[in-house]
Amino acid sequence: MSEIRLNVITGDWVVIATERAKRPEDFTKKKEKRDLPPYVPTCPFCPGNEDKTPPETYVLKDAEGKWALRCVPNKFSAFSNELEIRKERFGLKQRLTGGGLHEVIIETPIHNTTTALLPLPHVENILVAYRERMLSFYKDKRIEHVIIFKNHGEGAGTSLEHPHSQIVGTPVFPGQVMNRLGEAIRNYYYVNFGDCLYCLVLKDELRDGIRIIGENESFAAFIPYAALSPFHIWIFPKRHSACFAFITDKEISDLAFLLRDVLFRLHKGLSNPDYNYVIRSLSPNGADAKYFHWYIAIIPKVTQIAGFEMGTGMFINTAMPEESAKFLREVPVEQDNKGNGLKF
Amino acid sequence: MSEIRLNVITGDWVVIATERAKRPEDFTKKKEKRDLPPYVPTCPFCPGNEDKTPPETYVLKDAEGKWALRCVPNKFSAFSNELEIRKERFGLKQRLTGGGLHEVIIETPIHNTTTALLPLPHVENILVAYRERMLSFYKDKRIEHVIIFKNHGEGAGTSLEHPHSQIVGTPVFPGQVMNRLGEAIRNYYYVNFGDCLYCLVLKDELRDGIRIIGENESFAAFIPYAALSPFHIWIFPKRHSACFAFITDKEISDLAFLLRDVLFRLHKGLSNPDYNYVIRSLSPNGADAKYFHWYIAIIPKVTQIAGFEMGTGMFINTAMPEESAKFLREVPVEQDNKGNGLKF
Repeated sequence: MSEIRLNVITGDWVVIATERAKRPEDFTKKKEKRDLPPYVPTCPFCPGNEDKTPPETYVLKDAEGKWALRCVPNKFSAFSNELEIRKERFGLKQRLTGGGLHEVIIETPIHNTTTALLPLPHVENILVAYRERMLSFYKDKRIEHVIIFKNHGEGAGTSLEHPHSQIVGTPVFPGQVMNRLGEAIRNYYYVNFGDCLYCLVLKDELRDGIRIIGENESFAAFIPYAALSPFHIWIFPKRHSACFAFITDKEISDLAFLLRDVLFRLHKGLSNPDYNYVIRSLSPNGADAKYFHWYIAIIPKVTQIAGFEMGTGMFINTAMPEESAKFLREVPVEQDNKGNGLKF
Repeated sequence: MSEIRLNVITGDWVVIATERAKRPEDFTKKKEKRDLPPYVPTCPFCPGNEDKTPPETYVLKDAEGKWALRCVPNKFSAFSNELEIRKERFGLKQRLTGGGLHEVIIETPIHNTTTALLPLPHVENILVAYRERMLSFYKDKRIEHVIIFKNHGEGAGTSLEHPHSQIVGTPVFPGQVMNRLGEAIRNYYYVNFGDCLYCLVLKDELRDGIRIIGENESFAAFIPYAALSPFHIWIFPKRHSACFAFITDKEISDLAFLLRDVLFRLHKGLSNPDYNYVIRSLSPNGADAKYFHWYIAIIPKVTQIAGFEMGTGMFINTAMPEESAKFLREVPVEQDNKGNGLKF
């Protein structure tokens, strides 16, 4: 018997199709795995090939003074980088050119690793870079919205193996973000008597417990009650804040631990699945908004979007959120939190 | 130089990334094609295997009395089919069980064909079946919304080769449809002084002409100004109507011609790409709505959704809509409109 659950945050109905439901193991990546080398001479992100990328905008170094992380403009930016924004309107047709920012965060010099397997200080580096680049992007007055995301694996849309994420600043405010914000505002003012919907959901998830994957002082990771797809994961900060860029150092350390822990559980439990993650956040100007709450969404690429989803925006999730969370909780993890990486 | 265009109907900003732009030929399906036989003994949709599907809900026969099209309940329905709908609410958690309808439209007895290559009367059959099943679905008082769609090819999410489409009746009103409707209402009442946004867009596209693929007395097919992805196509009825189910016989005949023509151009021009199409329509109760206009969206599966699209709802289209339309207009088509299929 299937059930239809409401995702109160996205406003989407999700069909949890238990008759079609699959065991967690059924989502394990089937395709052949290649063993990658730690260094690839032709990879533009490997050390020694720094001249194959545009000059660095941000860099973090290791104890020996070698780069540990680099941010560089995306050579194949989706946006024109002319300084001037031109806006045109012909009746119903509106367009705009110029003014987008698009950078790549090269997360590590090592070609064949992944966030799930990195030492903790390295994951912290990535989050520090996210924070600094987001702050910097928003200083550009042409930028309306900044999104940070990672495409891991070919199925998730990446074209380069070397571990990297991306940050994009758009000169327009995305419609989907506006809708999400509208939903948050409506819930804050009209439905919840002035309580943040995200704070309420987090409280509810922590009380239920059955969909929690892990938590620490500053963050909780869970499969939402109405997860849009199998193993769809949210990481919420416990402190109410609408802007990721104001994350504290202590929170970065807690987030690095939990993010790596969750990605490791996916890596081991589902055999290194392709995934995307995104950081949903308002700008520093909107950081004090009472109605919005920044968070990370992780979406393993284990199923496909087709006509039904396209036509309705409804999702069919063939995994029971409570079972997926239990499965991930039970993945054996032996972590050394002192930053010497994972032992397994 | 890339530009960002506003899709006024969906409310989405689309990055037309001309620096990344590809020639139409670059979207041609590369993967090896298998020659399929016209009849597959193990296919549940092939003639002789009627007992492998649930009993027919609707059938159209040919001159010899054999079935030409069958509608059957989906054996793997996404919805429970209990008669009673149960609604539950525990704080923020809302769920509902029962009451969904899900049928498969087996479009032809022939295993190895596709809409693009069917004789015209056969395409008309498919549209007649859509109309009759939609009317029938909406007679079920539990159903809030009906969506008709087709997944063509593995990349578009189909698991069975035999030509078929699907119709789903949901006991909830989908959030995305509600948002789209809200946008339509807002435009009708506040922006356009009481003119249907869709009628205005259609008029604009016909006047511009450069994005039109084809038109006849009742319909026009075009690549929207802010197409969300390469070769994203809309077919709009010229007569304002919010509900597909009230399409006339003359309109069915005109739509069959144009739909087959467009699908043929895709088939020949891009070498049988995987695609989805959906019919966006209100219910018969909403047929007279002045602000909404039913239409068909065709989305070839030639690119991938990744973190940026997920996080913003913005799209990056690497094809220039005007060039894609020109490419499709120039695909040589020699059609016999008398219903004897396509000659090529």
